[in-house]
Amino acid sequence: MNHELRTLNHEPSVYIGIDIGATEVKTGLVTRQGTLVSKERHETAKIASPAHFLDILNETVHRLLQSNALSKQSVGGIGIGAPGWVDYPHGIVRELTNIPGWRDVPIVIQLQTATGLKSFVDNDANVMAVGELIHGAGRGHENFVCLTLGTGVGGAIVVDGKLYRGANGLAGEIGHMILDLNGPECACGARGCLERYVGNRFIIANALRKLEALAGPVHENILLSLADNRPDKITPKILAEAAARGDALSLDVWRETGHYLGVALSVLVNLLNPECFIIGGGVARAGSVLFDPMRDTAARLAMNQLGKTTPIMEAELKEDAGLIGAATFALTCLEKAC
Amino acid sequence: MNHELRTLNHEPSVYIGIDIGATEVKTGLVTRQGTLVSKERHETAKIASPAHFLDILNETVHRLLQSNALSKQSVGGIGIGAPGWVDYPHGIVRELTNIPGWRDVPIVIQLQTATGLKSFVDNDANVMAVGELIHGAGRGHENFVCLTLGTGVGGAIVVDGKLYRGANGLAGEIGHMILDLNGPECACGARGCLERYVGNRFIIANALRKLEALAGPVHENILLSLADNRPDKITPKILAEAAARGDALSLDVWRETGHYLGVALSVLVNLLNPECFIIGGGVARAGSVLFDPMRDTAARLAMNQLGKTTPIMEAELKEDAGLIGAATFALTCLEKAC
Repeated sequence: MNHELRTLNHEPSVYIGIDIGATEVKTGLVTRQGTLVSKERHETAKIASPAHFLDILNETVHRLLQSNALSKQSVGGIGIGAPGWVDYPHGIVRELTNIPGWRDVPIVIQLQTATGLKSFVDNDANVMAVGELIHGAGRGHENFVCLTLGTGVGGAIVVDGKLYRGANGLAGEIGHMILDLNGPECACGARGCLERYVGNRFIIANALRKLEALAGPVHENILLSLADNRPDKITPKILAEAAARGDALSLDVWRETGHYLGVALSVLVNLLNPECFIIGGGVARAGSVLFDPMRDTAARLAMNQLGKTTPIMEAELKEDAGLIGAATFALTCLEKAC
Repeated sequence: MNHELRTLNHEPSVYIGIDIGATEVKTGLVTRQGTLVSKERHETAKIASPAHFLDILNETVHRLLQSNALSKQSVGGIGIGAPGWVDYPHGIVRELTNIPGWRDVPIVIQLQTATGLKSFVDNDANVMAVGELIHGAGRGHENFVCLTLGTGVGGAIVVDGKLYRGANGLAGEIGHMILDLNGPECACGARGCLERYVGNRFIIANALRKLEALAGPVHENILLSLADNRPDKITPKILAEAAARGDALSLDVWRETGHYLGVALSVLVNLLNPECFIIGGGVARAGSVLFDPMRDTAARLAMNQLGKTTPIMEAELKEDAGLIGAATFALTCLEKAC
């Protein structure tokens, strides 16, 4: 147990963060200084329903407190980040884009009843933005735009140090900025949305198309060999490894992915003129092979000289950004407007 | 002289608005209730330089006051709307997109020195948004997006009842939202920007392309006959007249124009989730032939059911929106944060 935790008997200085993802649900104890103390993971596919999810969460919270010798009184509250449409003021998950069975779930009241702890829920990109604002790359900035790159492309807009939610809490759907009004169909009903080019599976699909078009002996390809010669095993992580080893095909995929993102960022510069961008999520871990072309395109297409210099930074909290963000979100909800 | 003006000896209840346009500069006296008392127009092309502009303005201000039997003491201040990049906090016009010779002009300090009246300057779309917010379609709304459709496509974003300017005052460039990243080149350096499809001259160019492709006797075309059979005389106003008379070609042009605008509005719904949109500027006067397809496309492409219902309204202050907006902008700068 570290020093920060020893002070917990006197004031609630630990918060619980819950990061609901399409692949796994992470639950963690986070100090008010933004340090992740311990966490648990559950496979999303094994959670049968929102009711089952509540049972698991309740058990997990008790287990985390017990294993850290903490009482409930030492917990300030619970914050949840959910990947979809969240009705923040009413604490209701309206719909989760990539997790079926969630519709109009009053998660906040249910979780408060089950655990006896004050709870708050918001969109996953919004809670990540709060984490970065307080403990990450957003420190010292009042106006910025956050992107999370993964299965979907999430977004959050911070204005005057607070989340901008819009009239119905729907703001920030950066993944559904249209880049080509005649482009490929998107699940949302529009065409040529950003997510349709840079969402996880579309990055992979691009790599597969390039592999198919490859001349010469395919088995010598670095990307394929990293995926045990099984195209269905290619992930953005493997694509990033292949690019790091100089695989031309993988570098091309990242260059194109970065270009699409750069187009969207240039539009956001023209529209919102943020102080900076903060880019997180699994896909962002690809690093400079993604960020270099993204920055090049954004700077080339933004219309104003000052706008062209808008910094595009990687999220600092990395793979725990969602978890730390969710816990920090609960803290900000309890202590100030969020 | 109306009743409102008779009270002016006791308090400054009149403001001067200056609307700099690519075609003409309008100067007017506006009451604090938003009524335009009288105005003067000057052809922009006949104004040789910013210095010449200042002389004209100074004379115009004196003439307007004299003809309305008003003293300088009865004027609260001067507001200017300029079509381009304006450095609002420093009162400097950085660059005007369609008017050459304006670069880093400290218009506020110059105008204050010349007239002795407190002056303020902002982007033309921003001052129009302030006019609509206080006296027009924006009354009762705190979060909305304004578009001005003319030679260029301007935009303004109102958040919590105030203009959102961004980190460097560059926010709101809705005309340079990219609708097709492989589309036609735009003057800003990007491709397929909204303005490249719905700016005045691109609407006309679309009509001319359709006229050229027309089978049958061209002289019987309603649009051409309204333009005295001179294609170079076609304006958006004439295109709107022809559409009102049922000209199929003109209706097609407006349908396409509305579609492009609707695509941009759907992206703005997804990004900003505003309470409503307010659309002004000369091109917006086309009315339902433009607004119907715009509303259809925006509702079809916005990703959320609630977002699909976002009202798209015509600006209320019509052709004097810029003038009344500029004067009202001065009022809000003097009386509260703007």
